[in-house]
Amino acid sequence: MAERGNLVVGQSGGPTAVINRSVVGIVREALKHSEIDKILGACNGMQGILKEKFIDLRAVSSEDHDRMGDLSGAALGSCRFKPKEEDCEKVFEVFRKHDVRYFFYIGGNDSALAASTVNRIARDRNYELRIFHVPKTIDNDLLVTDHCPGFGSAGRYVALAFLGNDLDNQALPGIKIDIVMGRQAGWLTTTAALGAEREGHGPHLLYFPEYPKSLVQIVADVEAVYRKYGRALVAVSEGIRGPDGRELVQSDAIREEARKMVGDIFVQWLDTFGEVMKTAGVGKPDAFGHIQLSGTGILADFISMVVAAALNPKYGNKLRVRADTLGYAQRSFAGCVSKSDAREAYEVGRRAVRYAMRGDVDGSVVINRLESGDKYRVEYSLARLDDVAAGTKDVPAEFFNKDGNGITDACREYLAPLIGPLAKRVRL
Amino acid sequence: MAERGNLVVGQSGGPTAVINRSVVGIVREALKHSEIDKILGACNGMQGILKEKFIDLRAVSSEDHDRMGDLSGAALGSCRFKPKEEDCEKVFEVFRKHDVRYFFYIGGNDSALAASTVNRIARDRNYELRIFHVPKTIDNDLLVTDHCPGFGSAGRYVALAFLGNDLDNQALPGIKIDIVMGRQAGWLTTTAALGAEREGHGPHLLYFPEYPKSLVQIVADVEAVYRKYGRALVAVSEGIRGPDGRELVQSDAIREEARKMVGDIFVQWLDTFGEVMKTAGVGKPDAFGHIQLSGTGILADFISMVVAAALNPKYGNKLRVRADTLGYAQRSFAGCVSKSDAREAYEVGRRAVRYAMRGDVDGSVVINRLESGDKYRVEYSLARLDDVAAGTKDVPAEFFNKDGNGITDACREYLAPLIGPLAKRVRL
Repeated sequence: MAERGNLVVGQSGGPTAVINRSVVGIVREALKHSEIDKILGACNGMQGILKEKFIDLRAVSSEDHDRMGDLSGAALGSCRFKPKEEDCEKVFEVFRKHDVRYFFYIGGNDSALAASTVNRIARDRNYELRIFHVPKTIDNDLLVTDHCPGFGSAGRYVALAFLGNDLDNQALPGIKIDIVMGRQAGWLTTTAALGAEREGHGPHLLYFPEYPKSLVQIVADVEAVYRKYGRALVAVSEGIRGPDGRELVQSDAIREEARKMVGDIFVQWLDTFGEVMKTAGVGKPDAFGHIQLSGTGILADFISMVVAAALNPKYGNKLRVRADTLGYAQRSFAGCVSKSDAREAYEVGRRAVRYAMRGDVDGSVVINRLESGDKYRVEYSLARLDDVAAGTKDVPAEFFNKDGNGITDACREYLAPLIGPLAKRVRL
Repeated sequence: MAERGNLVVGQSGGPTAVINRSVVGIVREALKHSEIDKILGACNGMQGILKEKFIDLRAVSSEDHDRMGDLSGAALGSCRFKPKEEDCEKVFEVFRKHDVRYFFYIGGNDSALAASTVNRIARDRNYELRIFHVPKTIDNDLLVTDHCPGFGSAGRYVALAFLGNDLDNQALPGIKIDIVMGRQAGWLTTTAALGAEREGHGPHLLYFPEYPKSLVQIVADVEAVYRKYGRALVAVSEGIRGPDGRELVQSDAIREEARKMVGDIFVQWLDTFGEVMKTAGVGKPDAFGHIQLSGTGILADFISMVVAAALNPKYGNKLRVRADTLGYAQRSFAGCVSKSDAREAYEVGRRAVRYAMRGDVDGSVVINRLESGDKYRVEYSLARLDDVAAGTKDVPAEFFNKDGNGITDACREYLAPLIGPLAKRVRL
């Protein structure tokens, strides 16, 4: 039997296009259960709980619940906050004070860890508290689950951005480089390839954090594509690494290469930019003393300028080389939702409440894929919080091609139902 | 009576989300008229005509016409090419050789000019040729017409990108700066404001090419918004100018300010980047000797670093300052079309053919707005080619607020039906 008491739901980490649907799933299901009294939204996740800042979600109209579900962003507010043991103690105290018996925390693996810690504290104090982690991340890197709500819509955005870029680049040929989110793993970058239907369609090259690259290799790859198709579209993960395994624009190996290939001025440029970031109070030095240049447009600009400098002399200085950093739109664009992602984000919330009503359980809601392709179908189950909190999930090796610059059919098959159908291309 | 002969349609300039619909409108209407024999697509606009490279559009299935209409980009290929008088002579000769009696050129005012030149040559030679300019540009800067096909969908993309960015920024507050396309006029930047429903919604500031700004002013504006709302979302036109009227990152006035406000290193950074662009063969000097830095991420990075450097010391170095350059997705995203824009892009193509069948006319198809708001309604007419070719249309002064950093209700009313409805926001 379920304990009578109040419910708290919170959102954590980077917003997505569908994280609000999980809130709506939780609220709509909670409204059906008489054991649940107050339905409270924590403002800005655990930070709001610590400050006892809650929103009464019963007071929100059903119409506004629908509207909230249709909006990207995190309607309750989010936080970038990894709570320490004492913070979790405090969260528990707030829960006890407010007679909270149900807690749903929507986020990535850090959120699962925070949930697990609060859970342990509650158990130690013999306080009946059911805690559920509701999965969310555009990075798709949670353990156990087949995939993560938020990833499908971000992937759909990326796939459509590259499809559009490729159609544009076919019409006005040139070399185009686009930077995709995902510092640790290439999950989101794999989705860039979904709009390519046949030989010659871009992106022609994909670079992932998993496969370190030298500038010589990148330039040679791009030139080979350009000679073959008269154009090149390249997807680059923001986590791309140099031969020494360090982030590209911070890699000493890359700097050494740049110095030799295209001149000292390129290294001066990176160093000057590092100084600017330090002056701006936004750049912190990495373990090797270089200012971290991430979160800016420098990676796109650097790769495109190196490619232009290396190739332009061979092609009469006529190459059109452009670069874009896809940016926050990947997680927040307000008009690009994958249908399966939207449905599943709602379901993981709803299922979490149903699990909570069933008995003395807690855990992280997991999506299990039963069938792929046109028959795509999933079921839901529960994993232990600690199993999800324990780490992150790598892209399987069999999803990358042998050169580490493209994806395999197995990867396409995995991604397709998550991203949803794209417009069919035409061969004139 | 219409002359019997062949038809050529070509696309020119930057692709848009709906330019292919104009081709489909032309082809579908042309198929109804027995006077028209071959229906030919010019590959890459006038460049393809000069090389006599045509696609037989009668051979394309009706299903593929539909598909083509659903795709962004320019399916026939496009060109960045301002033909000289002798090129237009050559185009005319190709038309005569291929018995072309109907020519439809889809593009901006340069395309109208090219069409006008070919038209004059044909008239001088007593060759019956009906030439129509079919309007297209995301810049919305064509004369005579109320608005341009392509603008509505690009504006919809920008509005949705800012709505998403604002919801994201509400959830995780900080200072966010986004660069919007449009080097000469602020048309596209105005659309950034459409997702803001009430006081406090972003974008809180908009900067246009029409209103030169100093760094002192920008920093003061951003700080005022930040103090009021604890966050700030800023839309900046890529054509923003410094106090001396020159593009921001090339303005000497801005460099002088940067030197004083935030230090020499910022100017060194711009100069180093200019050297890099020169080395890369992509940077050409402007009239004042500075390398043109446009078409890169530098403007976003520069403004955000200046803002961070100026404000961070006053706020404990804790400001989250981020910037994105919206990039090519604005014109090419493959999943964001305004319905009215899609419909009108098709109609301007279809109407052009109907005008051509009516008699000895030529011209540029014009959209006239009859009613705005929910009853939004347009009709179509013809303008003289030279009237459209003569220049570009400015944003009316009454569309800007008095500080030149926002839009008025008149502007919203003008934009709303072109961009289409956006998701309603929720106040929790």
